[in-house]
Amino acid sequence: MGEFDLIKRFFVREQSQAGVVLGIGDDCAVLAPTPGMQCLVSTDMLVEGRHFLSTVDPERLGHKALAVNLSDLAACGAAPRAFTLALALPRADETWLSGFSRGLFALADAHGIALVGGDTTQGPLNISITVMGEAPAGMALLRSGARVGDDIYVSGQLGDARLALEVFRGKLALSGEQFEQVRRAMECPQPRVPLGQALRGIAHSAVDVSDGLIGDLGHILQRSGVGARLDVDLLPCSAVLAAQAQAIRRECGLAGGDDYELVFTAAPEQRAAVLRAAEPSGTPVTLIGRIEAELGLRLLDAQGQVLPHQFSSFDHFKS
Amino acid sequence: MGEFDLIKRFFVREQSQAGVVLGIGDDCAVLAPTPGMQCLVSTDMLVEGRHFLSTVDPERLGHKALAVNLSDLAACGAAPRAFTLALALPRADETWLSGFSRGLFALADAHGIALVGGDTTQGPLNISITVMGEAPAGMALLRSGARVGDDIYVSGQLGDARLALEVFRGKLALSGEQFEQVRRAMECPQPRVPLGQALRGIAHSAVDVSDGLIGDLGHILQRSGVGARLDVDLLPCSAVLAAQAQAIRRECGLAGGDDYELVFTAAPEQRAAVLRAAEPSGTPVTLIGRIEAELGLRLLDAQGQVLPHQFSSFDHFKS
Repeated sequence: MGEFDLIKRFFVREQSQAGVVLGIGDDCAVLAPTPGMQCLVSTDMLVEGRHFLSTVDPERLGHKALAVNLSDLAACGAAPRAFTLALALPRADETWLSGFSRGLFALADAHGIALVGGDTTQGPLNISITVMGEAPAGMALLRSGARVGDDIYVSGQLGDARLALEVFRGKLALSGEQFEQVRRAMECPQPRVPLGQALRGIAHSAVDVSDGLIGDLGHILQRSGVGARLDVDLLPCSAVLAAQAQAIRRECGLAGGDDYELVFTAAPEQRAAVLRAAEPSGTPVTLIGRIEAELGLRLLDAQGQVLPHQFSSFDHFKS
Repeated sequence: MGEFDLIKRFFVREQSQAGVVLGIGDDCAVLAPTPGMQCLVSTDMLVEGRHFLSTVDPERLGHKALAVNLSDLAACGAAPRAFTLALALPRADETWLSGFSRGLFALADAHGIALVGGDTTQGPLNISITVMGEAPAGMALLRSGARVGDDIYVSGQLGDARLALEVFRGKLALSGEQFEQVRRAMECPQPRVPLGQALRGIAHSAVDVSDGLIGDLGHILQRSGVGARLDVDLLPCSAVLAAQAQAIRRECGLAGGDDYELVFTAAPEQRAAVLRAAEPSGTPVTLIGRIEAELGLRLLDAQGQVLPHQFSSFDHFKS
């Protein structure tokens, strides 16, 4: 199977999609921007052994490779429109490609986003996706908009992906059923795309949790020039994580990474509006802290005691 | 040096650029499309040992990684606007990063294109760039527009990059000065961006020569449902390649690859318009054949004799 056969067989689809004038097959794809909308762009690269294990089900990998990119669009409140896929493969393995493209397109179809181009080459397994989305001019949610007094929310639950990683690392043991649940959180994250769009005009700032809550909330604090308090014992987590020791719960929830939940801030007057925004997509949202004028991040327990912390964000060139 | 330091030090720049509402530093970049324009997108991935040698000067590699993407925009007649860079690096080598970013930004600045986002991770060296450009609605040059009777042109010269590769492979020898010249063609291709835009409304079809003339012209023929004759002895080449044996000249010119010249077709009535379009940028263009109704590609020598050919296009999973 050659390069062009591979692309045709696994990645070219016939259906037409809104805004796509020309998809795969020319030097460029041609997209028609919606008048009045801005274009939002994000790129993520996944490397074997770094972002995923070599043993991962290729269908789940196809899902996750697009999910982590859609999560960036979600954080900005953008509607997904199109994506490109650059794929380096050690060899053209039909079983792998079939599973990978199935997982990729299942998620793409669920969000109405079209694969419009890309590149396929031989090399160490590497998946680089660029997503493009749209939001009304000036309405994108940014990291820089947090205001003193804002509530801090997080969607869904935090920490299961990290818990699964610790099991893979042999540092923790879970029952088979519990492990499947947290492994699913790690391998099949659900990007919060509907929530992100529903929060436009309500949230002041947002970020997605990819490197861990403390690190990613830190981006909001830094770019907004503010500080925050987090009520650590309010962090939402699964029953599996809740059953772990406190130190593990806190480490996974605060510094886990790979959660792909949204952290966002909104004025206290918007509490009802935030809940209404989350309802149509059935996305849980939890109030976990407050933006403060004093710089830095303070972690408080249920008794209001300040906790020391040395949690660090994930860094590809440090850890 | 951590991931965020690395990005800040080598890839974040302060200048504002037209159409870029928000660059590096949030979950997404925010771009403002120009009203009436369509958005053109292309992605290329470069892998060490496959697209470049491990010994290549990082400054030239930075240039080439962007050049091959700009060449796709050129082929469609698009004006470059923005790009993202996903980079997997074995380690954060400051000397390498400094050279790579210098070469990358020198070419970006020459074409007024802004780096708006991306990703940096540890892994086997891999460079994936996605470029975005603009063309007036309906004016993009495509592979599918060739018409029977069209002239076939190529820009610049063909074959030097392949000649350099044969020297690296030890199959040919050149003098030091000659080698530097062809090596420069291989490592520092100049994307034909001004020519591509100038050909809008004049050329019927275009493609860039990345996998070899025969293969890439073949894309035009296939998507346009036409055939062609090529006058092989009219192919433009450098004095270095011209001094080689006929078999080498033909192999390098017809099936070389890595040329990043434009092949395009236009009606014979447009010959003066084609020359005028090429003049402002000083781009040489050469008439090398004609689109014909009979399917397939016929290679003719200077005496009008049909040559047998088994040249094949470069395929990452076959060669």
